[in-house]
Amino acid sequence: MFEVAILGFGTVGSGVAEVIDRNQKQLLREIPEGVHVKYILDLRDFPDSPYNDRVVHDIDIILNDPEIRVICETMGGKEPAFTFSKKALEKGISVVTSNKELVDSLGGTLAVIAKEHDCSYLFEASVGGGIPILRPLRTSFAQEFITSVTGILNGTTNYILTKMETEGLDFEEALKQAQDNGYAERNPEADIEGYDPCRKIAILASLVTGGNVKYQQVPCEGISRIDKQDLAYAKSLGRAVKLLGVCRHDEETNEVYVRTAPYMVQEGHPLYSVNDVFNGILVHGNMVGDLMFYGSGAGKLPTASAVVSDMVECIQNMGRNIDIGLKNTDAVLEDPEEYCERYFIRTGEEDKDRIAELFGDAIEYVTAPASGEIAFVTDMISCRSMKEKTAKLSAFKKAIRLL
Amino acid sequence: MFEVAILGFGTVGSGVAEVIDRNQKQLLREIPEGVHVKYILDLRDFPDSPYNDRVVHDIDIILNDPEIRVICETMGGKEPAFTFSKKALEKGISVVTSNKELVDSLGGTLAVIAKEHDCSYLFEASVGGGIPILRPLRTSFAQEFITSVTGILNGTTNYILTKMETEGLDFEEALKQAQDNGYAERNPEADIEGYDPCRKIAILASLVTGGNVKYQQVPCEGISRIDKQDLAYAKSLGRAVKLLGVCRHDEETNEVYVRTAPYMVQEGHPLYSVNDVFNGILVHGNMVGDLMFYGSGAGKLPTASAVVSDMVECIQNMGRNIDIGLKNTDAVLEDPEEYCERYFIRTGEEDKDRIAELFGDAIEYVTAPASGEIAFVTDMISCRSMKEKTAKLSAFKKAIRLL
Repeated sequence: MFEVAILGFGTVGSGVAEVIDRNQKQLLREIPEGVHVKYILDLRDFPDSPYNDRVVHDIDIILNDPEIRVICETMGGKEPAFTFSKKALEKGISVVTSNKELVDSLGGTLAVIAKEHDCSYLFEASVGGGIPILRPLRTSFAQEFITSVTGILNGTTNYILTKMETEGLDFEEALKQAQDNGYAERNPEADIEGYDPCRKIAILASLVTGGNVKYQQVPCEGISRIDKQDLAYAKSLGRAVKLLGVCRHDEETNEVYVRTAPYMVQEGHPLYSVNDVFNGILVHGNMVGDLMFYGSGAGKLPTASAVVSDMVECIQNMGRNIDIGLKNTDAVLEDPEEYCERYFIRTGEEDKDRIAELFGDAIEYVTAPASGEIAFVTDMISCRSMKEKTAKLSAFKKAIRLL
Repeated sequence: MFEVAILGFGTVGSGVAEVIDRNQKQLLREIPEGVHVKYILDLRDFPDSPYNDRVVHDIDIILNDPEIRVICETMGGKEPAFTFSKKALEKGISVVTSNKELVDSLGGTLAVIAKEHDCSYLFEASVGGGIPILRPLRTSFAQEFITSVTGILNGTTNYILTKMETEGLDFEEALKQAQDNGYAERNPEADIEGYDPCRKIAILASLVTGGNVKYQQVPCEGISRIDKQDLAYAKSLGRAVKLLGVCRHDEETNEVYVRTAPYMVQEGHPLYSVNDVFNGILVHGNMVGDLMFYGSGAGKLPTASAVVSDMVECIQNMGRNIDIGLKNTDAVLEDPEEYCERYFIRTGEEDKDRIAELFGDAIEYVTAPASGEIAFVTDMISCRSMKEKTAKLSAFKKAIRLL
């Protein structure tokens, strides 16, 4: 048996044990000796779990056992996950993880350590749950210049926006429904303020460029300021509001534009039909064109399945590094303030005479605005320009980007 | 430089040369020595092409050059593609291809020869053009039991059905538009009668089960008998008609049900929104749940990109076989006549009194049938039972499956 260890026996970690046990027969096709969970590291004991006899509280028991050659880190958070992962990699033990916080902040460092020690650091499960995205980017698109990645990367916020749209709910009502249905946490900040999808687009941007993009560098806006009137406006424009992570990679300069923000997406666009808790990730390669990967972006077993797929790849490549193309250098980020997009803008009627003067003749007015409002769509303008112009409106309410 | 050869310089073959040249920089990240097309085998010469100096007419020049370690077979058809591929593999030269006809009929044979000679036979481009599907099935889902694959696998027929639906056209009119726009061939039989998607679902079913499924074993029905009234009925049921390849894999018996046929797909289902020339492939794994891969399923550069991705993987695995899990044995096929599905049925008004008697009380009538018709949806029944019952209707017109 090929012996592995799980660090952190929470939702994903216990899912990993379950996938390995339930699908041992499938694993045997790939790894004829079979895969066995020898240790589970956790602060707690699990007296009711069939795995309790494998629980240890000391990482050194795992790191000092020469039988262990792959570790699954599903602890979450930066520490001690980073220290444990680093120690394992320095011993030539491959590490697979779903820990997007650690991957985003120190993934490049750990990838380089793995390379130096002929083992691997893989993190498919950190983006899109069970949806295969990082491996296809690295293998199926090895020959591509990826010019853009655009994703609905958070199921909770997509569920809320879908509810607001289909049932005419306001944000707070839809959030409450999501909480009641177990799709949103009691403290939903990481989702609704966009921090979670922001980390994911930062990881995707890092892999696309080969340099580190940290989520602190990515302008991040969630959906808490979206109201049902915005959804009604979107509908009248033949669009829906989606919280997107966007990454645009310039083929000539190699610069990358990264942002997380709500966007109005046109009907007919592949991401328009991605509803409820589903995720969709649209990739554009310079040869292959547009491709979308769609599925449930979270959940215990789907996420665990992605972790196990990384484990299989590590086992099949024992003694050699799987190069994920991530270096310990920083990506060259384009100034997000200078990037040009189209905006949907809401302001008060009193600004009627200033709009054409500020935004030019190319704007399109929304024909049935809410009472007392004017709403319109701008031409392509930079974020900086949008901010300067809307600052001159006396009753400016909101700007939402168009995809 | 890593030297490769292209057999067949048609649309895909010339696309492969173009992808290698235009994206050499991307390829250098994966293959530091670079990739170079040394030979192109074709019956023709290409005096106006910059590649003309590499054109040869004798396969032995390629097979006897020890520098050639990967060959791309983009000739199409069974022979001489099979003989050339076999000879190459027997010399330890890996072969990558987009040739679905050869893969479907003799892919298992060639995969086994590749294994015996420590090289590889890969064919990502044979299904879904540039959409990564075969590699994800083999890598990202190595730990999964794949219970089903359901795909819109042919862009031409999807374009025709979309036109019929959105513009109220009849089949012949929509086909003519597709031909005028270059989406359908002058002799469109392979597409409209479903032979092309049938080969693709046979290949997918082979990979899912590990045994050969030949397209001659797969019941195949195209869209030429679909009329605009069917589309109107579908709409009234909140559905759209899509030509699907379906593969259902039984976890207990390991038997597989495979079919190509038009289906009515419910609004909200991921395949419902796959329109125009796009393909969508929905995969269900027992742990990971539903995932969909979406994109343009054809085209010169997307298809060539998939061929080159296989080439890269072969080069990165020189001297060892990439096991695609395909054996030279036959899959165990479930009798398609016994598989139960729901059917939409159209018949004449004169059958009014026989319907409940034949199909039971669980049927649902369509409320606004076409003049002189009765239309209804059955409960789950076998194909055999559907045929027996509809044979007893005096004015039976048509049955279409429901997804």
